[in-house]
This record gives sequence, C-alpha cells and structure tokens, in this order.
Amino acid sequence: MLFNRNFKITSDDLDQIVFGTAVLASGGGGDPYIGSLILRKAMKEHGDPYLLDPSRVSDNALVVTVGAVGAATVFKERMPNLNALARAVAILQRIVGHKVDALVAAEAGGMNALLPIALGLRLNIPVIDADGMGRAFPEGQMMTYGIYGGRASPIVTVDDHGNLAVTDSEDNHEAEKLSRSVATEMGNGAMAACYPMKGKFFKSACVRNTISLAQELGAAALDARRWKGDSNEAMIAYLANREKDPRYAKTLFAGKIADVRHDVSGAFLRGEVKLESNDGKHHCEIEFRNENLIAHIDGKAAALVPDIITVMDADRQAPITTENLRFGQRVTVFAMEAPPILRTPQALAVVGPRAFGYDYEYKPISYLLKLAAA
Amino acid sequence: MLFNRNFKITSDDLDQIVFGTAVLASGGGGDPYIGSLILRKAMKEHGDPYLLDPSRVSDNALVVTVGAVGAATVFKERMPNLNALARAVAILQRIVGHKVDALVAAEAGGMNALLPIALGLRLNIPVIDADGMGRAFPEGQMMTYGIYGGRASPIVTVDDHGNLAVTDSEDNHEAEKLSRSVATEMGNGAMAACYPMKGKFFKSACVRNTISLAQELGAAALDARRWKGDSNEAMIAYLANREKDPRYAKTLFAGKIADVRHDVSGAFLRGEVKLESNDGKHHCEIEFRNENLIAHIDGKAAALVPDIITVMDADRQAPITTENLRFGQRVTVFAMEAPPILRTPQALAVVGPRAFGYDYEYKPISYLLKLAAA
Repeated sequence: MLFNRNFKITSDDLDQIVFGTAVLASGGGGDPYIGSLILRKAMKEHGDPYLLDPSRVSDNALVVTVGAVGAATVFKERMPNLNALARAVAILQRIVGHKVDALVAAEAGGMNALLPIALGLRLNIPVIDADGMGRAFPEGQMMTYGIYGGRASPIVTVDDHGNLAVTDSEDNHEAEKLSRSVATEMGNGAMAACYPMKGKFFKSACVRNTISLAQELGAAALDARRWKGDSNEAMIAYLANREKDPRYAKTLFAGKIADVRHDVSGAFLRGEVKLESNDGKHHCEIEFRNENLIAHIDGKAAALVPDIITVMDADRQAPITTENLRFGQRVTVFAMEAPPILRTPQALAVVGPRAFGYDYEYKPISYLLKLAAA
Repeated sequence: MLFNRNFKITSDDLDQIVFGTAVLASGGGGDPYIGSLILRKAMKEHGDPYLLDPSRVSDNALVVTVGAVGAATVFKERMPNLNALARAVAILQRIVGHKVDALVAAEAGGMNALLPIALGLRLNIPVIDADGMGRAFPEGQMMTYGIYGGRASPIVTVDDHGNLAVTDSEDNHEAEKLSRSVATEMGNGAMAACYPMKGKFFKSACVRNTISLAQELGAAALDARRWKGDSNEAMIAYLANREKDPRYAKTLFAGKIADVRHDVSGAFLRGEVKLESNDGKHHCEIEFRNENLIAHIDGKAAALVPDIITVMDADRQAPITTENLRFGQRVTVFAMEAPPILRTPQALAVVGPRAFGYDYEYKPISYLLKLAAA
C-alpha cells in the first residue's frame, strides 16, 4: 500500500532541511545538525530516502510517531541512538499487535524532524512527509495527533543501556508526564515511540508536508544567502507564494541582544531575551520555554504561540536556538504564522497562549501588526 | 501444586501481625494499620487466609512480588488500591506469559507485609509466608530476590486512575529508579508487581517465614502488655527461644527524645533522632532514611543496618515510625539482629552500613555490645 512515494531527499538537500527545520523549531527542538549527521550516515548505508505524501497513507495502515525525548544539551554530548529507537518501535509493534507500516515525526522543528527519516532507512519502513506540530513544542500532548483525539499511549521509552519503559494513560498529558519522568531518570536523553494511529485518523490529524516545507524554506534562505541576499525576505516571499498552504511571515525586528536570562527548571529551559534596535529606540522581548512563545515589541504583543518566532543571527543569517542566545549578538526576529490546523479553538486550547500561561487570546501576526499600526 | 497451606490467619491474629510488622519495619515500611484495614475487609469478604510455607512452593511455580510504592504519608490520605494491584499482577502475568502461582511480599515490615495477603484472598492466589527483606528497606533492589541474582524487571506500576508503567532494566537499581520516578509522578503513591521468579530460585533467595515471625513477635509483645509485663523483654525471650531461626535482640536504650530532625529529600524521609537517658547521663542517636539505619550510644555504634532498630513508645509499648518521632516522647530502643541471609557479604554489599553511606563494617548487635563493654 505504501509504495507511492513522492518526495526524495538527496544529500544535497540536507543543508536545506537542517536550515528549514531550525527555522520551524521556533528556537527549540534540539539541534537539527545532530539529526543531519545521523541521517547522512543512514543515507550512506541505505541510499536516499523518499518521503510519502500523507494523502497516500492507506486508511488501515499503522502509523507510529518516533523521536528523541530529553534535553537538547544532553543530545549534544550523547548522540541520539537509532538502535534504541528501533527497539522502541519493535516493542510498540509487539504491544499493538500489528506491523508498523509508516513512521512519522513528532515535530517538524529541529532534530526530531530528521531522526524518523534515518530510522525509516534503517528499518526499511516508509516515512511520511508530515508531523504532529508543524514546528516544535515542549510537550508530547501538544501534538495535533492528541489534540484531535488520538491516544499517545502506549509510549515506549528506551535508553542507550537497554533500559525500557512502557507508559500508558487515557490522558495524553498524564502519559507525557509519566514518559518524561522516565526519560529524565534515563539521564534526560532517551528515544521514544508513541501515538500508534490508524492511517485514516492520522490523515485527519497530522500537519501535512512539513518536512518538504522545511526543505523548501531552507532552499529559499540558503539560495538568498549564497547570492548575498536577505534570507528572511527570501523565506517570506517563498511562503507567501506557495500554491498549497501559503503562509504569512515577517521580519518583526532587527537589533542586538541587550539581555538574556536562562533558567533550567524541571525538564525545560525557560527564559527571556531582550533586544534593542540599532538606533536604541525600539525594544523587543521574547519569552521562551524550550521554544520561543511570545514576542513583544515596544510593549505590544507582536507574535503569539503557536505562531513561529525564530531569532536569526544577522551576520550568519542562520537561526539561533534559545540555549545559544548570547548578550551582544546582532539578530533579526523572523516570525511566521502557524498552519490552520494549529489555529482552531481545539488546538489553541492546548497550544495557544493561555495553555502556556499567557493571558492573551491568540491572534495571528498579521492581525497584531495591523493593530500596532492602527 | 500449591494446596499445602500451613499458616492460617484469623481476625484475632491481625493485631498481633500489625504489631509484629511494625517492629520488623525498623521505623519505616508504611503504616501497617492501613494494611490491616484492607486485609480485614478482604477477610470479611473471602474468609481467613492461609499462608504457604516457602518449602512447599514447587520449583516451576511463578512467584510474583506485590506491594505499594511511594510515601507512607501519601497512603495515610489515599488508601492503597487493591484493584490497581490486581491490575499490575494481571499485566505482569500477560508479559511473562505464565499464570501467577503465588504472591509474596516485598518486605515483612509495615503495610507491605499485609497487602499481598489481601490481594491473594481477592484473586484466590496463594500467598507465601516469606518476604524479600526480613524487615523494611527504602529501595526495591534491596530485596534478597535481587541480591541473590533475581531480576526485578519487568516492574508494573499502576495508580488509582488507570495510569500504568512497565519498566525494565538488566540492572535492578536502575529498574528501581525508573519505577520510583513513575510512582513519584503518580502522586508518590502507586501499586506495583515485580520480581517474577521461578519457585526454585525464590526458595533459595527469600527470607523465610517472616509473616509468621511478625505474628509471633506481636503475640509475645501484646500478651506481655496485657499482663502489665515488658513487651520488649517478651519479644527478646521469644526470639532467643525460637526453634528455627533464633535471633538475638536487646533493649538498647531507654529515655526520652531530646531532639528530632526530619528532612524530606527526594522520595525519602531522612533524619536523626537524639535520645537522652532519664538520668541525663547517656545519649543515643539514631539516623534514618525512611527506616532507622544506625544507632550510636554515647558515641559508640550500638546497632548497624541490616539489624533492626525500632523506637518503642515506652508508655504505650508500641513501635513509633520515623515520621511520628516527636520531641519529649518517652521511648525505648528495641534492636534485633537480621536473619543470616541478610548478613552474607553479598547481602551486606547492598544493605550493609556502607551501602547507606556509613563508614562502618557491619557487626551484629551482640558483637557491638561486647565491644562497648570491653
């Protein structure tokens, strides 16, 4: 059923995908470069992967979500382990009692966008051009699979040493907390398989074509950079002109980092970065919890989660993850609107500003800009 | 195979067992009174239980350890849930692929000595007169089942809300940490089934006849108390004169609590209690981590883990758990030597003083007394 594949990735595309997933990560998501190293190795051994368009997944296929769970900083020192991820899939398969027909990413932002592709090559299982977030988010129950009624459990979590946990709850948030407590005990770096889904449900709940979106975003940006153009502008133009799923995007701010505060609390990196425009007249504040969540410019909300907020290094024209924000960096703030599937009342209840503790109703970037101009 | 049962418990015996398990708990183990309430209810519904002598467990029987995991204080507010424990056993049975032939306690001290008996009545599965500690200890890998080569995993942990975790590790200490992190996330109170064992191994590794020991200790103490005698002396005489497994015991100290320090760190209640003799001339210090671990009298070691150290209320002649130690209480310190199976080099490596961070080689109470007198 799954042999109609339609999006091929070659090693030339990898830099583009790394760039694009870093943009979609909204400052979090783990280092996509690490994911690309693992994917590049898998491609050397097994050839170039094809990603399957979600529309081509058959209704009865079993789709499983795979990825790394833990702290981005841990995976810098201890590479995500494909063997452990393969074991997680094998165990989930045994529990569900059905062959896994396709793999899909938890998030399109960062490392976790790339690991499923490497695993799919290793296991010879098709990987779908889609994800459950259209970006990166800090917690598992924030996947659209769960938001639209899917069951995260059983979640199989495996570490490098053969330690294993299967956690199960009717409540996806509870399931997330159980599996996270295990991953934390495993040294805050483990591999997980979860959200076993029937193809029919999956197609109704996934964020479509986000891996190809990442590649195309990266292609636009890197092409502009190569010709000394503005990579943000290139991405904005590309997004506005997409035939399917056009998106509004904008460079919200340009300046330098005047202050940054990091606070590792629980399993999350929380903090805030303050920017100052080059003329010193304007200020931008961005709050993050792993991912950038909310941006204020001169005291007014300029971008709200789930819209994507990515701080770009102005000199290198490349995304900076929240843990790498440093005083004095010259940056721009690139923002793009989330896909419609993340902007329904049902989705905003889980991934909107209030779900993260901000007393704002979600409004898209384009609306906030008009408001600020009025 | 398991129909030769040999130790019957009637409701008249329950107070004795509660007393005895509280003594064996060495100050920890959770409130046995709560366990007795659950057991009493099960006995009303299903009749009086028989406990099976370990020698009568057949070599090929599947024996499983069951009990509550979490904080003693939590179970005071939220009773241990037999339905959850039954579910844990059912899931472990499914994973192992073999009918559970007999249940056994993790520890003979406190609440966990009684829960398996109640569950056995409910499920109509025999319960063995034995345990894995001969007392209470704070961590799962401290069971003799693990010390002598058994595998704690898979550990099935279930809470009141249907949340579930199966954790697995080759390393029993790692398995303990994974299941404890889950139990902590479950509100620090969950039910668990673990250490699936073949009868042959079980018989080589268990601490035998510890539930009947608890009942007999309790009978001696309560009988003495009823006739205005000294319950400690009655237990000491009983222990010295047992035909099988005689044990040395002694009242180490009598006085009042001059100071007590409780510190809840991690999942444990750590602390220290300082006693002063009635004439003010002698001092006793006891350090605990859930359970009392080490007692010093006038600066000299007087009892060392795994020997059992239980602080008794002098007026009520009843054990006081570490969380209930209060300034001003009149107390005695009852100590009894651990069974030989806990005193081998293999066992002391896991449950001896050094395993708890004390720079002492284990010596039994009788030896330390001679040393102090010399």
